[in-house]
Parts: sequence; C-alpha cells; structure tokens
Amino acid sequence: MSKTKVAILGSTGSVGTQTLDVIRTAPDRYEVVGLACGSDAESLFAQAAEFNVRTLCVGDQQADIPPSSNGTTLLRGSEGLCEVAAATGADVVMVATVGDAGFAPTVAAVKNGKSVALASKEMLVMGGALIMELARSSGAKVLPVDSEHSALWQCLRGENQSDISRLILTASGGPFRETPAESLESVTPRDALKHPTWNMGAKITIDCSTLMNKGLEVIEAHWLFDIPCESIDVLIHQESVVHSMVEFVDGSVKAQLGSQDMRLPISYALSYPDRQSSITNRLDFANLGNLHFSEPDHERFPLLNAAIEAGRQGGNAPAVLCGADDAAVDLFLAGRITFPTIADLVLGALDEVEHEDLDDLEAVPRFHRAGFDAAMNLAKIPSA
Amino acid sequence: MSKTKVAILGSTGSVGTQTLDVIRTAPDRYEVVGLACGSDAESLFAQAAEFNVRTLCVGDQQADIPPSSNGTTLLRGSEGLCEVAAATGADVVMVATVGDAGFAPTVAAVKNGKSVALASKEMLVMGGALIMELARSSGAKVLPVDSEHSALWQCLRGENQSDISRLILTASGGPFRETPAESLESVTPRDALKHPTWNMGAKITIDCSTLMNKGLEVIEAHWLFDIPCESIDVLIHQESVVHSMVEFVDGSVKAQLGSQDMRLPISYALSYPDRQSSITNRLDFANLGNLHFSEPDHERFPLLNAAIEAGRQGGNAPAVLCGADDAAVDLFLAGRITFPTIADLVLGALDEVEHEDLDDLEAVPRFHRAGFDAAMNLAKIPSA
Repeated sequence: MSKTKVAILGSTGSVGTQTLDVIRTAPDRYEVVGLACGSDAESLFAQAAEFNVRTLCVGDQQADIPPSSNGTTLLRGSEGLCEVAAATGADVVMVATVGDAGFAPTVAAVKNGKSVALASKEMLVMGGALIMELARSSGAKVLPVDSEHSALWQCLRGENQSDISRLILTASGGPFRETPAESLESVTPRDALKHPTWNMGAKITIDCSTLMNKGLEVIEAHWLFDIPCESIDVLIHQESVVHSMVEFVDGSVKAQLGSQDMRLPISYALSYPDRQSSITNRLDFANLGNLHFSEPDHERFPLLNAAIEAGRQGGNAPAVLCGADDAAVDLFLAGRITFPTIADLVLGALDEVEHEDLDDLEAVPRFHRAGFDAAMNLAKIPSA
Repeated sequence: MSKTKVAILGSTGSVGTQTLDVIRTAPDRYEVVGLACGSDAESLFAQAAEFNVRTLCVGDQQADIPPSSNGTTLLRGSEGLCEVAAATGADVVMVATVGDAGFAPTVAAVKNGKSVALASKEMLVMGGALIMELARSSGAKVLPVDSEHSALWQCLRGENQSDISRLILTASGGPFRETPAESLESVTPRDALKHPTWNMGAKITIDCSTLMNKGLEVIEAHWLFDIPCESIDVLIHQESVVHSMVEFVDGSVKAQLGSQDMRLPISYALSYPDRQSSITNRLDFANLGNLHFSEPDHERFPLLNAAIEAGRQGGNAPAVLCGADDAAVDLFLAGRITFPTIADLVLGALDEVEHEDLDDLEAVPRFHRAGFDAAMNLAKIPSA
C-alpha cells in the first residue's frame, strides 16, 4: 500500500495536533508532506523535525521566526499557505486554520483536484456554492471533519443519493438547553462558555449555546451532501453519543455513534475508504446511560432557523449572517450586550444588508464585513 | 427498470402476507412468479388471483384443495416447493415457511444461484456451513429478513469486511428482563407469552423470554456476515428502536433504527440495492422517550451463551440445540416443566448427545431429533 500524503494547514492548533496524533499511530499509512501554522513557528519546526517534513509555512507575515533547520523550505503568508496546499504533492489537505486564512489555500487545493478535509465550517457556509462548483470541475473531493458531518458521511456510505429522505443533525443543546426564556436575559459569558460535552474555543462555544453553530452545520451539510436545507433537521441529543443520522425513503434510519474524540472523524477523512484501527475507545453501551432526543426550541434559540433560512436564500446571506454573528458574539463576550441580543443583532443585520448574489469568492470578506458592521451599528457601537 | 421477480414460500403466513403488502404498494417494481403455502389453499388461490400468479404449491400433501382457476399450475409437497423456489424464474425467493418445510426448497434455490431471503433462522442456524458453501459455489445470495440482521446488513453497506470489529445484536430482553432469579421458578407460559414489543408465535416468544432466540440470531449473523461468533455481542435494548449495530476497527459504531414493522426488512431484501419509498412510518425521535442499553444477565438466561457456544462448536451442536429447545419449550407451554428447566434440559441435551460433524444437510433432521429426544429423556417424558 502506498502512503497517503498529507498536508496540514493549521498544524499547531487543536485539530492540527490531533491530525498529527492520528498520523503518529500509523506511520506506515501516512507521509506528511507540508505543514503550516499561523504564527507558532517554534512548534511548527518541532513538528517538522518529528515528521521529517521539508515544506513549511508560517502564515502570519509578522510572526517571529526562530532559525529553522537546513533542508527545509520555509514559506510565508497566504501565498505560502496556497503552495503548501496545492504544490506539495499532497493527496489530502487538512484545512484546520482559524478565521479566513484557510480560504485561499482551500480554493487552491480544490482547483488542483486535491481531497480537502475541512475542519472549519465557515468556508462552506459562506462560499459553498462556488467551492463545490470548483470541486465538480476539478474532481476534487471536499471531505467533512466535523463529527456531525463525518457521521452523516459514514451513514451515507454505499447508499444511493436518491434514497435519502432527510439528514438529522444532532445537537447537544448547549448549556441553556433547559434555561427558561426569561432567565436567558441574565446569563453571562461565563455561563455560556460551559459547554456540556465538547471542549472548544470561545466563539464556537457561544455559537453552540445559541444553536447558531447547528444552523451553520445545516448549511455545511447542504453543500457537502447536496441535500436541500429543507431536508435537514436538527434534533437535540444532550449526550452527544449519536453524532448524526440519515433517514431513508423507506423509513429506515442509520446513525453513527462514537466517543467524543475528534481523532475519529479526522482519521476517517484521512484513511477513507479504509478505516484506521484503534483510533478511539470502544463505546461502553451498558454504561452509557439513557439516550435522550427532543426537538429544538425555536422560540428561545431563533438563530437556528435564521441560519437555515440564510442557507436557503444563498447568495451573500450566509456571509452576512457569519459577519453579524462574529460581531454579536464579540459584544456578548465583552459584556456589552445580553445573550438574547446576539440573535436580535444577527436577525437585524440580515434584514438590513441588501441581498446580493455571490459570483466570486473574493466578495465573501466584503459581505462578511457588511454583516459585521450592520450588527455593530444596530448595537450602536462604532465598528473598529 | 425491469421488474424483480419474486417467489414466496409460506405466502399465507405472517411474513408471507407482509411480503405481499410490500409488493402491493409497488406493482411497477415487482412481479410475483410463484406462491406456496402449507395448507391454506383457499387464501393461496385468492393471492394468486390478485397478483396474477400461475405457479402455486400447497406443501401439505394432506390438505384439502378447493377447485383452482384455469391456467394455473398447482404443485404439491416438498418437490412442488422446490419447483416454486428454483424453477419459476424468480430473482428473489422469500422463504417464510414454518418448521423444516423450507429446507429442501432453500437448498434448491441456493443451488440455482437465486437470491434467497430467509425469514426463518433455523436453516442457517442448523445448516449454515453447508448452505453458505453452496451459495459460494453457485453465486447465490442469502439475504436476511429478521429486523436485527437487516439492520446489520444496512450498517455494513459499503463497508470493508476487514474494517468490522464486532456486530452488536440488540435484544428487547423479553418479559422477564427485570424478573429476579428466584421468581423465574414460578412464571407461567401466559407470563412468558407477553412479549414487550413484537407480536409473534408462541415458540419464538418463549425463545425470546429465555434469550435462546438471540443466541440463535448470533449464529445466523455469523453465517450471513462471515463474522466469528466471538465477535458478535448481544445488548439489551428494551425499546427495540435500535435494531442492531456494527462497531468498526476505528471505534466508530453504526446503528440502524426504525419502527417495529417487518415490512421494512422485507422491502429492503426485495429491493436491495435500492430502497422502496414509504414503507414504514417515520420515527418520531422527539416522542421516542429515552433509549436504554444494558448487558444481558447470563446467570438468569444461560441459553444465550449455550446457543453461542453451540454455534462456535459447529457440526451437529446447533441442530441438537434446536431440537432440545423445541422439546423443552413444548413441555413448558404444556405446563409440564418450569421456566428455568427449559435451560436445564437444553444444556443437558447438549452434554448428552455426542458431537459429530455435519457433512450433509440431510443429516440435520436426525441431529435435531437426537436433541429433542435427549431433552425429553432428561425430563423423564417418553418422546412421541
């Protein structure tokens, strides 16, 4: 078996280091051909030494760079990221960057017909139509890394597209699953950051608490699996054992279950169509306790439907949504607005910014900014 | 799309009539080319008239036969069943017979390279090695109809055999799931016949209450999916919503869920690799309630491991097991032995009957009889 060549963008972050964990357990299966980080050059060099990688990139042009070892090529900036993505001979490019740094290299990899494993959902949310069109032309595969989307992908394996009736994304429900509407007014960022099951960054944890994150995942699933947003449902499942499900036209449902360990979807994306041994602990069903399922409460969590509606609209709506949410979550984390105001600002911004088509991925940052500014204006706070 | 030609053995029974229900909803998809019953010729003729079937068989040589319509061929006995199975041009033969009437026609269909949908597990349990060997030579497919095995088959779809870590068969646990060991001594046939979720015949309902049925399903899964019995686990799941699961080498688990409706696995077997629309009601997850999982109690239900052990031994052991269980369940239903004595007799019979290889399917009835007689002797009741 020839080794799978992997390039990792964002290799020093959480998904990046877990990707290297997966690769470390199967040195016969993988070869790392490129690594890129934002600014942590020291960790990058240590990874390069361990995995014997010759092509590196530090994305941040301002970052301090310690001396690197001989024989390595050190690239800088967005062009460097694109080179790691598209010109290192990688079979699979893991995009685990933060913010919009991943956009250009993702496009470069997709244009070059690579398999692109996307750990960051914003790209598909904001530019899914164009990215998937590029992928169709080049033959590139866009592979999910989110545990929910990996679950859907696993359930869809071997099935006919025409037999799919609906996708069912599960959601933990976040820390306010049971909080009465009248108490949401007084919840603090600290309350919101207590995610019941997964340990993630602040922005995504707040997005989980508003169910915005699940709405973004609906849009992501729509693009990954070519299923209309109307046929993607969300189900609250507090235990996060069932990672997602697919219902077929005959009424049968398939679910994927697993421990809460990102290494499972990462390894699935890297080793597909094979599976790599002993990635996560076995589920211990007898000690799982009970599994619960319930409908999301759209009254208390209006951003779920707002996101799905933006996905349905398409064009610039998802970028406006993401921009407005970035602004609103910043304000909430800074203690400047209440929790329910997050949704008010996002809904207001979606109302305010005129709908436009999205013909070019380069327009995405502009639409994102328009959403951000609109939310800031609604909060009566001048944008930076 | 050309129609799938279906022959049904046991068409007037529960699975047989449900098979015709499935076919009735999709007349463009299926053509019924043969029907066979045990003795209910009147119902058989009505089915033949509705589905315009020309080749019929009444298996029971003693059954009264009303006049049949012109233009139909009416066969009798085991040879007739074999002819319906193998010589009607069927693409799929549904074997939904009772007792051992299905053995000869199943072998005939398998030898002729047909797809054989097996609703009755005894054939694979007692003769799996030889039947699967015949299927390998002829290219015949043996398809599951049991909801548990259909679930496994659906979860395995598109997966590599080498990536399977274990099969997990779910079991409702039967009416005595929570009954303390000391109370099992006094349970009555009436108590045992109250199955919590599925409505089935008396013999299989008692086998569910002893978990013998689940042990037989382990053996059946072993033959259907070529997985060693040691890699097939049983999990108690009282709600019977998760019909079974597969664990893969990476720790990922796939489950199939659905309503308790045999038409789903029946339609899946008939329409595979496609799925037929609107077979069962959608699962309503928000109203499912909680799903529970627990380990089976092998102390109270020793027949589960006894069956698995017989499957592991192979040779004549599964036939002896089935014969002894038939005797013991008869005695329990007749009020002549207590519930725990069912297991005592079966375990005793397995000890008593000498182990032999199984080289010929025709030896199966003899080994079955040996198990039956041994159990009767242990109960000190002369065999009929």
